[in-house]
Amino acid sequence: MNTPIYDRVALIGLGLIASSMGHAMKAAGLARHIAGHAKTEATRAAALEVGFCDSMHATAAGAAAEADLVVLCVPVGAMGEIAAAIGPVLAAGATVTDVGSVKRAVIATVAPHVPTGVHFVPGHPLAGTEHSGPRSGFATLFRNRWCILTPPAGTDRTAVARLRALWAAMGSNVEEMDAEHHDLVLAVTSHTPHLIAYTMVGVADDLERVTDSEVIKFSAAGFRDFTRIAASDPTMWRDVFLSNRDATLEILGRFTEELFALQRAIRMGDGPLLHAYFTRTRAIRRGIIEAGQDTSAPDFGRVKAGT
Amino acid sequence: MNTPIYDRVALIGLGLIASSMGHAMKAAGLARHIAGHAKTEATRAAALEVGFCDSMHATAAGAAAEADLVVLCVPVGAMGEIAAAIGPVLAAGATVTDVGSVKRAVIATVAPHVPTGVHFVPGHPLAGTEHSGPRSGFATLFRNRWCILTPPAGTDRTAVARLRALWAAMGSNVEEMDAEHHDLVLAVTSHTPHLIAYTMVGVADDLERVTDSEVIKFSAAGFRDFTRIAASDPTMWRDVFLSNRDATLEILGRFTEELFALQRAIRMGDGPLLHAYFTRTRAIRRGIIEAGQDTSAPDFGRVKAGT
Repeated sequence: MNTPIYDRVALIGLGLIASSMGHAMKAAGLARHIAGHAKTEATRAAALEVGFCDSMHATAAGAAAEADLVVLCVPVGAMGEIAAAIGPVLAAGATVTDVGSVKRAVIATVAPHVPTGVHFVPGHPLAGTEHSGPRSGFATLFRNRWCILTPPAGTDRTAVARLRALWAAMGSNVEEMDAEHHDLVLAVTSHTPHLIAYTMVGVADDLERVTDSEVIKFSAAGFRDFTRIAASDPTMWRDVFLSNRDATLEILGRFTEELFALQRAIRMGDGPLLHAYFTRTRAIRRGIIEAGQDTSAPDFGRVKAGT
Repeated sequence: MNTPIYDRVALIGLGLIASSMGHAMKAAGLARHIAGHAKTEATRAAALEVGFCDSMHATAAGAAAEADLVVLCVPVGAMGEIAAAIGPVLAAGATVTDVGSVKRAVIATVAPHVPTGVHFVPGHPLAGTEHSGPRSGFATLFRNRWCILTPPAGTDRTAVARLRALWAAMGSNVEEMDAEHHDLVLAVTSHTPHLIAYTMVGVADDLERVTDSEVIKFSAAGFRDFTRIAASDPTMWRDVFLSNRDATLEILGRFTEELFALQRAIRMGDGPLLHAYFTRTRAIRRGIIEAGQDTSAPDFGRVKAGT
C-alpha cells in the first residue's frame, strides 16, 4: 500500500467516475477515508452495497465537512448548486476539484462559492464507458487515460501537485492547460462526435422504410460504434452541450461545411477528391495507435467475447 | 471435414474479404480447389505466401475458367471490367457472385456480361475490419455476421440455395432482400456513418488551434471510434459513395436536417429536447446488444489488450 495522499476524500455524486475513483483509491490506498454523497437514497444504498465509500451522507455538506479533497462528480448543470451547499463547511487548506467534461462553465459556477483559503483545481479525467451509475465503476478505468487539470493562474502549486499525484497514482497521465483551450479540444475529440453519433442513431430510428430490426441486425457495418457512443448518459450530455455551447457550435459549423463539400463531391462524381480525403484521415488513426490510445487489433475482437 | 459445396471457387481480387473467404473455406473444407487472381504481382505473391489459394492466375479469366463459383471481390468500380473479362470463359451452370457493398450498381454493370446458363447471385457479407489486403483475412471474419443476397426475380433457386449454404458454412447468417432495399439499409447502417466519420476526422486534422498530437492524445473521449471507421480502404469507399449516390445523399439530407435541429436546441438552450433525444437513442443500443451484434462490456476492454 502507498502512503495515503489525502486523509479524507469526499465524492459528491456517485456515478461511473466517482465509483471508479473510489475503487482505484481503495485498491492503491490513496485515501484514509472516503466519504460519499448522492442525491437519491437508492444511489446511496447501491454505493454502500458496492463498498467504495467508508461513510455515506444524506447531504453534500455532510460528506464535504473535514475533507481535505472534495471531488464534484455531478452533471455539469448541478455543479453550482452543490458548490453553494458545501462552500460554508469547506476546511481551510482543503482542495475542491471536479470531473466535469467542460471547464469554463464549471469554473464560472463553482469558483464564486469556494472560500478564501480553499484551493479550487478544476479537472477532467478523459475516461468513461457508455454505462453509468454507482455499480458501473472499476479501479482500472483511468489507467493509461489522460486527466486534464485547468487550474486558473495563481492557483497554489502545492495543491495542484498533490492532485496530480492522486491522478497519477490512479494510473492517469496528467496534463495542464487553460480552461478555454480544454473546451475547444474536447469539442473536437468528444462533444461534437457524441452529438453526431446521437444524430445518426436518431435518423436510423426514424426512417420508416428501414425497420429498427434491420438497423439492429445490420449494425456491424459501421453503425455499431455510433450506437455505443449514443448510449451514454443523457443528463450528462445535455449539460455538456448546453455548457460548452460556443465551442460545440463552432466545431459543428466546420463539420457541416466539410460534410457539404464531400456531399457535393458525391453528387458530382468527384472520385479523386473523395479518395484523397479518405487517404488523409488514415494518418490520424496511425498516430492514435502509436500513442497507445487504441490497439490495431481488428474490431472483431470485441464481438467474439460476446458470441 | 464437410463435403465440399463447390469443386472450384475462383476468388477475383485478393483483399480482406477474399482472403477471409479463402481461410474459412479451407478451414471447413468447403471447396476442392481455390483459384485466385489479383491485379498486381505483389498481391498475388503475398496471397500465395499466406496460402489461402491452391492456384494463382495472372488473369481473371484464367482463374474463372472451369470454376463453378466465381466470387468478385474487387472494388465496386472495377466489377464491370472484371465481368467483361471473365464472361466468355464462364462454364454453363456456374454461379457468379460478388461481395460489393452496393448492389444496384453492381447488378447494372455485371449482369450484362453474365452469359445465359450462368447464375448471377449478388451478395454482400456485412463483415470487415479497418485493415485491407491479402494478409488481413482470417477464417472467423464472417462468424455470426450477416450476409445479404440480392438475387433478381427469376434467379435459379438451387444456385441461390447452394451459395446460401456456403455462407452459412462460413458462419454467416444469410438474408435475402431486393437490391434497392439493400442499398437504402446500408446507406443508413454503413455508408453515411462512414462518410460522417471521415468528415469528423478531417475536421479535427484541419483545426489549427488544436494540434494533431492533442487530437491523438485525447481521442479516447469519443473520437477514437471515428478514427477506426475512417481508416478503412479509400478506394473501396470512394466507389461505395459514387455507386450508392442516391441513397447516401438521401440519408445525408435527413442527417443534416436532424443535426440542424439539435444544433438549434443547443443554441437556444433547449435542455428538454436534447435530453429526450439522447434518451431515445439508448433503446437502439439495447437492441443491438440483445441481437448479439455487440457486447455490453465497456469499451475499455479493447484498450487493455494493447497496454
